[in-house]
Amino acid sequence: MEIATLLVSCPDRKGIVASLAQLLYGHGANIVHSSQHTDELAGMFFQRIRFDLGTLTTDRETLEAEIRETAADFAMQWRLAYAARRHRVAIFCSKQEHCLYDLLIRHRAGELPCTIAMVVSNHSDLEDVARHFDIPFHHAKITPETKVFQETATLDLLRSANIDLIVLARYMQILSPKFVAQYPSRIINIHHSFLPAFIGANPYRQAYERGVKLIGATSHYVTADLDQGPIIEQETIRCTHGDSVDDLVRKGREVETRVLAAAVRLHLQDRILVHANKTVVFH
Amino acid sequence: MEIATLLVSCPDRKGIVASLAQLLYGHGANIVHSSQHTDELAGMFFQRIRFDLGTLTTDRETLEAEIRETAADFAMQWRLAYAARRHRVAIFCSKQEHCLYDLLIRHRAGELPCTIAMVVSNHSDLEDVARHFDIPFHHAKITPETKVFQETATLDLLRSANIDLIVLARYMQILSPKFVAQYPSRIINIHHSFLPAFIGANPYRQAYERGVKLIGATSHYVTADLDQGPIIEQETIRCTHGDSVDDLVRKGREVETRVLAAAVRLHLQDRILVHANKTVVFH
Amino acid sequence: MEIATLLVSCPDRKGIVASLAQLLYGHGANIVHSSQHTDELAGMFFQRIRFDLGTLTTDRETLEAEIRETAADFAMQWRLAYAARRHRVAIFCSKQEHCLYDLLIRHRAGELPCTIAMVVSNHSDLEDVARHFDIPFHHAKITPETKVFQETATLDLLRSANIDLIVLARYMQILSPKFVAQYPSRIINIHHSFLPAFIGANPYRQAYERGVKLIGATSHYVTADLDQGPIIEQETIRCTHGDSVDDLVRKGREVETRVLAAAVRLHLQDRILVHANKTVVFH
Amino acid sequence: MEIATLLVSCPDRKGIVASLAQLLYGHGANIVHSSQHTDELAGMFFQRIRFDLGTLTTDRETLEAEIRETAADFAMQWRLAYAARRHRVAIFCSKQEHCLYDLLIRHRAGELPCTIAMVVSNHSDLEDVARHFDIPFHHAKITPETKVFQETATLDLLRSANIDLIVLARYMQILSPKFVAQYPSRIINIHHSFLPAFIGANPYRQAYERGVKLIGATSHYVTADLDQGPIIEQETIRCTHGDSVDDLVRKGREVETRVLAAAVRLHLQDRILVHANKTVVFH
Repeated sequence: MEIATLLVSCPDRKGIVASLAQLLYGHGANIVHSSQHTDELAGMFFQRIRFDLGTLTTDRETLEAEIRETAADFAMQWRLAYAARRHRVAIFCSKQEHCLYDLLIRHRAGELPCTIAMVVSNHSDLEDVARHFDIPFHHAKITPETKVFQETATLDLLRSANIDLIVLARYMQILSPKFVAQYPSRIINIHHSFLPAFIGANPYRQAYERGVKLIGATSHYVTADLDQGPIIEQETIRCTHGDSVDDLVRKGREVETRVLAAAVRLHLQDRILVHANKTVVFH
Repeated sequence: MEIATLLVSCPDRKGIVASLAQLLYGHGANIVHSSQHTDELAGMFFQRIRFDLGTLTTDRETLEAEIRETAADFAMQWRLAYAARRHRVAIFCSKQEHCLYDLLIRHRAGELPCTIAMVVSNHSDLEDVARHFDIPFHHAKITPETKVFQETATLDLLRSANIDLIVLARYMQILSPKFVAQYPSRIINIHHSFLPAFIGANPYRQAYERGVKLIGATSHYVTADLDQGPIIEQETIRCTHGDSVDDLVRKGREVETRVLAAAVRLHLQDRILVHANKTVVFH
Repeated sequence: MEIATLLVSCPDRKGIVASLAQLLYGHGANIVHSSQHTDELAGMFFQRIRFDLGTLTTDRETLEAEIRETAADFAMQWRLAYAARRHRVAIFCSKQEHCLYDLLIRHRAGELPCTIAMVVSNHSDLEDVARHFDIPFHHAKITPETKVFQETATLDLLRSANIDLIVLARYMQILSPKFVAQYPSRIINIHHSFLPAFIGANPYRQAYERGVKLIGATSHYVTADLDQGPIIEQETIRCTHGDSVDDLVRKGREVETRVLAAAVRLHLQDRILVHANKTVVFH
Repeated sequence: MEIATLLVSCPDRKGIVASLAQLLYGHGANIVHSSQHTDELAGMFFQRIRFDLGTLTTDRETLEAEIRETAADFAMQWRLAYAARRHRVAIFCSKQEHCLYDLLIRHRAGELPCTIAMVVSNHSDLEDVARHFDIPFHHAKITPETKVFQETATLDLLRSANIDLIVLARYMQILSPKFVAQYPSRIINIHHSFLPAFIGANPYRQAYERGVKLIGATSHYVTADLDQGPIIEQETIRCTHGDSVDDLVRKGREVETRVLAAAVRLHLQDRILVHANKTVVFH
């Protein structure tokens, strides 16, 4: 099967589902999966439709043109993703290796449908990991003086490699608003707490001091506001009075890797829509 | 809104989604939610569509007639449930009260969209509980001699009360195949283990003896084969070497109540389709 | 067996474990369980010892006197609880019934080793629930004018009934610092969020607006600072974009009841020590 | 601190706890942690004591001699592990890499206190992984003809390397009873189901066919009876009707890695005692 995924969001009104179903049917496309959500408070409609292009009776251009027309009728935002056109991903990391390893192992196992085009780091520590998986490694050393320059150079690099998703795998630098603006809803970060608890630095120490009985991790799209972007996935894990800060860090690695990988996978499968700083995630 | 839910299953083929969407749209029904599943190994298609009847431009009879026609074209099994027509439920119990209480409390809180028409028990211990919630209680004492007779009497009672769902809330009697056959996919049981582990009697003792580190509970539709029916919901809970059989029983009550209530709720919301001894559960 | 539980905390130093073991052995008391914890940062030692009084070769007064002496040597805080002397509990509630029912059902099932001496409420809605379980119900209506007076009257009531644990089962009034000071580490509250996220009013609405993917509940001892007391137990449950605030409230009830009941049970089993606004919970 | 861990099990009787505490105190050893368990049905007592050797007033030989004497008095089985003497581990694998990677990454992060002395495999596929982590790799190809010979050669290899723990990280060969007998309670396997459900081959396919709503993984000590050894750790993960066998395999990898790593860590920390085909695990 040649699969395409159509993601749409628009003000809710009658007839959207039937219109899209009819449109696709009219081009010979067979719907293999469909999910929808209506946010009644916001008055918004969201849908994800996966369909088979193999039986198309017209061509892709004609199909896209008609989607464009229908979208205009319904004031829809839409995106059409062809499974054959794999996402191109850059992973950013610093010195901690657990999330990087986890993503590369899952990728090799076929869990992450994408091309990992590069690993970018402000340190050289993990070059050996990238090389072990045959992924190009870019060392972009960052100092207060070079930070602006490095971001510009990195943006050039990403553009020239047609990157469409950036994954911050425990990357310890804050991206500038200018950088973030280039990749709206296309930078995924992992924060090592159950947001909105323990925003900012050292969440495990904060958790230790508060004496919580669960710690967590949160993956979210990066926005200009630190730790405030739309949440994609969260998970918690039990801890006790017996856990030192180091124990929390160790336990946390486990949820961080899982939660980041889950978010990346959901994004790569075109399951996420963003509206008003929240995500609609079609599982 | 006046909501109706259409559940369909049929051999998979092209055009089903569009046909149903078009059909409903043609009658003015607005689809508010839709989920689908294709079992590729079995070659089967399943869909649940919730739609608003308030905007219907024809009437229910005309709509149903056309669904019947389309269903015939696609060799569909289908069921149309009107939210306004509440399910009528009988809860069967014996001496243990936790599941009964839990269901009645949730019902009163509005979590279970149904009429609980009666509580049936082979013991009188829980009559006071039923009375506290103003539910009629039927004591149907069962002895080896009276079992066949009682089942017949109970079937009469259920029929005269138009019961369409029976919930076995730790009911300690085995229903005869003849009884079960009257309510296919309409009797929900809670088994106090993570099936298929620990089938049969005393699952907590079996779990204790095997030294497992998790115990569980399983809700399933009752079929003629004991503990073998289609599984609706399962959950597990941690245990340790320190837990006695009594501790397992106590911990188990917690998962039993949750898993049974979840299954009943899913059924009442018309979210479950059964095919080949397995469930499709649209969450 | 006649069980006693000794809970101690003191500055950490060598020989504590051996001294207590030797002391108990010297009186013929057989240790049936023991747990300990050292908080290295705080330099504090904590221990819980359960022992059998049945084999005591001296008497309780002599034993207590020697514990008192040893405690003085080690600058210990200590508490000796005899299992035969059941905790006396008052449950405070308002209009929501789920936590109250849950506690009363568990109590009847033998899960909560205590005497539930009364239910106190600022509304009369749940009188019928208390009566169903044969627990005295006190309606203490609270208005801005009567609040101070009512608290004093309630304190008198609690004192005259020898209450040693107060459980706030979704009690919607804030207790005054003066009231709280009477029951240090002896008032357990359930907060309907994963603290410290969503402190204050309407945590489910806050959670909805932030778009979290998990909601939670936290049981804690009440201190003068609202929602800031030592955390006893926490749990989370998954939610999705599809959950309305009402859905979060419904899902939340499930974790609230579990987390509150777990905390109460841990307290009643004398498993909790408090130090520096954190709990040591011996599972 | 120089830590030693004493693990004992014996028929339960009065005075064991005090005797051991007094014994250690008499040698100047400071107890930093202690846990105990009494299995009342079996009449057995179990204890784990961690103590600091740094303050020893005698020497290790004298201490061990007195432990031996006390052990004889109580008919104790005992084991004394010095933290400074790291466990020596061999990891056995076949072609699947997820558990191997996970163990090696955790080891490098300091989560597994041991020396991983070698990776042994019946295939050469994972040699590159072992090399990446600088662990010697032994390819021991197995055919029906060479199996007996290879086991003997492998046993020699293990002996000459002083291996004291074997971890089967999805090793797809069945070890002979003769081999297993050489390492009682010292071979840890990961079975890809929630035992005792789905014993034997292809548990994910079995799970798919039964239509379960959770899948799991079980780590256990290997005994002569396949999949019947003492369970160390288990975990489950949700699945749905939408998961194909391949999806279950993918989800399963996540629990397999976690559950195996947890079991290995528990063993390496000398937290596990085995009695009557069950484990006592001191968390």
